[in-house]
Amino acid sequence: MFPFEHVITIDSGSNVPIYKQIAFSIINAIRGGTLRAGTHLPGSRELAKLLGVHRKTVIAAYDELNAQDWITIIPRKHVEISERIPVLQPRKWNTKEPVMAYKNRLNLPFRIIEKDHKKHGVTSIPEMIIDDGHPDVRLSPIDELLKTYRSFTARKSAIKNAHIGTEQGTRKLREELVKYLSETRGLNISTENILIAHGAQMSIYLTAQILLSAGSNVVVGNPNYPVANKTFEEAGATLIEVKVDGHGIDTDEIEVLCKKKHIQAVYVIPHHHYPTTATLSVERRLKLLDLANRYSFAIIEDDYDYDYHYTSSPYLPLASGSHNGNIIYIGSFSKILDPSLRMGFMVAPQDFIDQCTALRKLIDVGGDGYMQNALATIISNGELKRHLKKAKKIYHQRRDFLDTLLKEKLSKFISYTLPAGGMAIWVKLNKGYAVGKLSNNPQLKISRIDTKLNAFRFGFASMDHKELKMAVDSLERIFATY
Amino acid sequence: MFPFEHVITIDSGSNVPIYKQIAFSIINAIRGGTLRAGTHLPGSRELAKLLGVHRKTVIAAYDELNAQDWITIIPRKHVEISERIPVLQPRKWNTKEPVMAYKNRLNLPFRIIEKDHKKHGVTSIPEMIIDDGHPDVRLSPIDELLKTYRSFTARKSAIKNAHIGTEQGTRKLREELVKYLSETRGLNISTENILIAHGAQMSIYLTAQILLSAGSNVVVGNPNYPVANKTFEEAGATLIEVKVDGHGIDTDEIEVLCKKKHIQAVYVIPHHHYPTTATLSVERRLKLLDLANRYSFAIIEDDYDYDYHYTSSPYLPLASGSHNGNIIYIGSFSKILDPSLRMGFMVAPQDFIDQCTALRKLIDVGGDGYMQNALATIISNGELKRHLKKAKKIYHQRRDFLDTLLKEKLSKFISYTLPAGGMAIWVKLNKGYAVGKLSNNPQLKISRIDTKLNAFRFGFASMDHKELKMAVDSLERIFATY
Repeated sequence: MFPFEHVITIDSGSNVPIYKQIAFSIINAIRGGTLRAGTHLPGSRELAKLLGVHRKTVIAAYDELNAQDWITIIPRKHVEISERIPVLQPRKWNTKEPVMAYKNRLNLPFRIIEKDHKKHGVTSIPEMIIDDGHPDVRLSPIDELLKTYRSFTARKSAIKNAHIGTEQGTRKLREELVKYLSETRGLNISTENILIAHGAQMSIYLTAQILLSAGSNVVVGNPNYPVANKTFEEAGATLIEVKVDGHGIDTDEIEVLCKKKHIQAVYVIPHHHYPTTATLSVERRLKLLDLANRYSFAIIEDDYDYDYHYTSSPYLPLASGSHNGNIIYIGSFSKILDPSLRMGFMVAPQDFIDQCTALRKLIDVGGDGYMQNALATIISNGELKRHLKKAKKIYHQRRDFLDTLLKEKLSKFISYTLPAGGMAIWVKLNKGYAVGKLSNNPQLKISRIDTKLNAFRFGFASMDHKELKMAVDSLERIFATY
Repeated sequence: MFPFEHVITIDSGSNVPIYKQIAFSIINAIRGGTLRAGTHLPGSRELAKLLGVHRKTVIAAYDELNAQDWITIIPRKHVEISERIPVLQPRKWNTKEPVMAYKNRLNLPFRIIEKDHKKHGVTSIPEMIIDDGHPDVRLSPIDELLKTYRSFTARKSAIKNAHIGTEQGTRKLREELVKYLSETRGLNISTENILIAHGAQMSIYLTAQILLSAGSNVVVGNPNYPVANKTFEEAGATLIEVKVDGHGIDTDEIEVLCKKKHIQAVYVIPHHHYPTTATLSVERRLKLLDLANRYSFAIIEDDYDYDYHYTSSPYLPLASGSHNGNIIYIGSFSKILDPSLRMGFMVAPQDFIDQCTALRKLIDVGGDGYMQNALATIISNGELKRHLKKAKKIYHQRRDFLDTLLKEKLSKFISYTLPAGGMAIWVKLNKGYAVGKLSNNPQLKISRIDTKLNAFRFGFASMDHKELKMAVDSLERIFATY
């Protein structure tokens, strides 16, 4: 008889019930061509003895295999592999050892987007992380949001509601945003001009995919938010880098470029440029609008940092006021709520939003309708505004506290311009101090280090005063070893 | 003097503070080229009188404009538009009426994905919706999930943790899934083979974008899940349709195709095919695996409906057992938890997962780490399994109850094959009864109607017995009018 004990592997330490392990083994043997149509299987008593398991276990396995049409049970006679199983060539790659199929590489051609894809699934979290500008989730109205969320999932009408229109964003949230964006940013829009996306990044991706194609020229700052650059390249566009200084992206340089070649789009982060935190000045804002009009390019205005400006009101977005509609305005709630929640939006003419929505449907169907309606609720009941006011005050204090600490402890090693807003300080290291050394510390992880510019982003918003002091103390200790 | 009262529009009914409205108006006039560098503005007292507002309001507006560098205040002398404002040509499209910039179309070329993009932002919800197979959120462990979620956002270590590795999915969830997929599906994989995506659809999108390119041939069933078809076309692939019958996709037809041309991938929904609910038979499963091996194509196995099989265990996925690694396995928790939560996963060889992860980062950075860890928790504490067992029992009863109702009330008009699992019955209308008539009912909305096949999907899982009866009664009334 066939040596079933070699085909059937039982691992008593596994969480998989024994009867399932037996069934799986037999299925694999059939699939591998080892067991063929018509082959008799031992009776349940016999196989139980062979494997050293209870007879009921074998019966359960056979019932499972029978229900799935792998075997035929002929009562009071025998059990056999179903006659309907096609004849298979035993496959060469099918060794005797149980194979982990997914240990193989995919042996078909496919696209390579990132050659040395860094692994982020780290197992050990360093004691301290200086992020690149995260909000403090401990201050976030996330609890309020989740409470509202739970109230929605319990109500039936809301349930039906939540599944409708989530590709573009629920109507309720878009209606709230029309009011909110008018009050906070002077935007004069209707619900058809808004798409609720999965964070600001999805808006950048959708814009790139719909607006750009192979050979499009896109102007970006140098340095720039690297994920945006990659997203434009992924859409086939050619990046043209333009200098960024203390007043933001250099619009004179953009003008020179426009005279030479056709530019499809300019990507700007008016406040505060990533990573340098520069705010785009009034003159350059006007110049950029004027150029966009004269040379017919789109402005992709990534205004993720609008809500946090400490010494005055933020500049109104380029997208506010009168223009020809060619400004795609991108915003986010990640900096107010929590980056994990991935709530963002884009504003554009309706025909463009429609196409972005159609693509968005292919990417992930839509967003979470409950969460969108919960956000709409905390906007309309004023909770979000109250939170923002409170958070702004605290982050302002943290920025100033970090400023004092840096001046006190690290002024010999670094220089920086205190940003008017945002959640990070762009810290440049003095000559002779290489920023690379900061990245090799097991206790301290700095999320955004730029070795070319010898600088890093010091996100201050997520840390309280005690934590800021600890982080600066850590840096001081490292600098002492240079 | 310049007629400022015509440039500054105040809407007392607006939520925007008056001082901001004044500031916005002046900024717009500067941007539009109406007010130029050096132009003197009236004193605050004078402007207040002109506009009929309090003087303090004008001072607040001027302070705002000054802080943003739009104007220069020369104390005790006058206020003027900043000399640094560049000279602008008054723009032709800048009419006197306040313009809604986003009323315009985007007047640049861009991609058209969907010509007649249907609007989903409906304002009125019909009394009754027959969905195409949604779970009943009233049974979902969503409350348990949100409780866990809230406990995470309150704990600091989890906070830091939640931001790490979310592009591919948190390590904690991937570790739980390795165990879960082994126990439930016989998959033998490691954490590197898993990507947590935003629902099953994102896995289809990522796979299409990474695996396919212009001119790739993809075999799909006819009929098929239409969003998948569009996703493959969006990646540039050519669809080749193959008949689907009661045993799933016709593998003999696929073999004939393979002999004629190079096939990059075959997309299958083994249980239960969308929209017809057919289960792919054992013979065809084996045949398909054999063909994939012989003709080197990838199998995209969309197994979103695996968890709900009522009369026996579900068939093991094609992806389980030994194969050469060219099976991309796609699963979802949407059918267990709630479609709004958008939790899904894909399984593939590591090199392929790495590239999908790199693309995913460009699309939306990553998922919600808190939610992923909350899901991991309810998997590991057994809550998910308990829910699934309970839900399966209830859905089984609902399927049988609907079967009885349909036989009792609608047997003259329709025919169907009761599916072995899933959440919907594929109802075919008899000759002489056009399904189109069902779609024009204001009280009843049917999510998935196929006019070509004269059939619709009757999602039974989301309705309790009373609701099922109401829905069938509604249908009976409509059929009476034929």
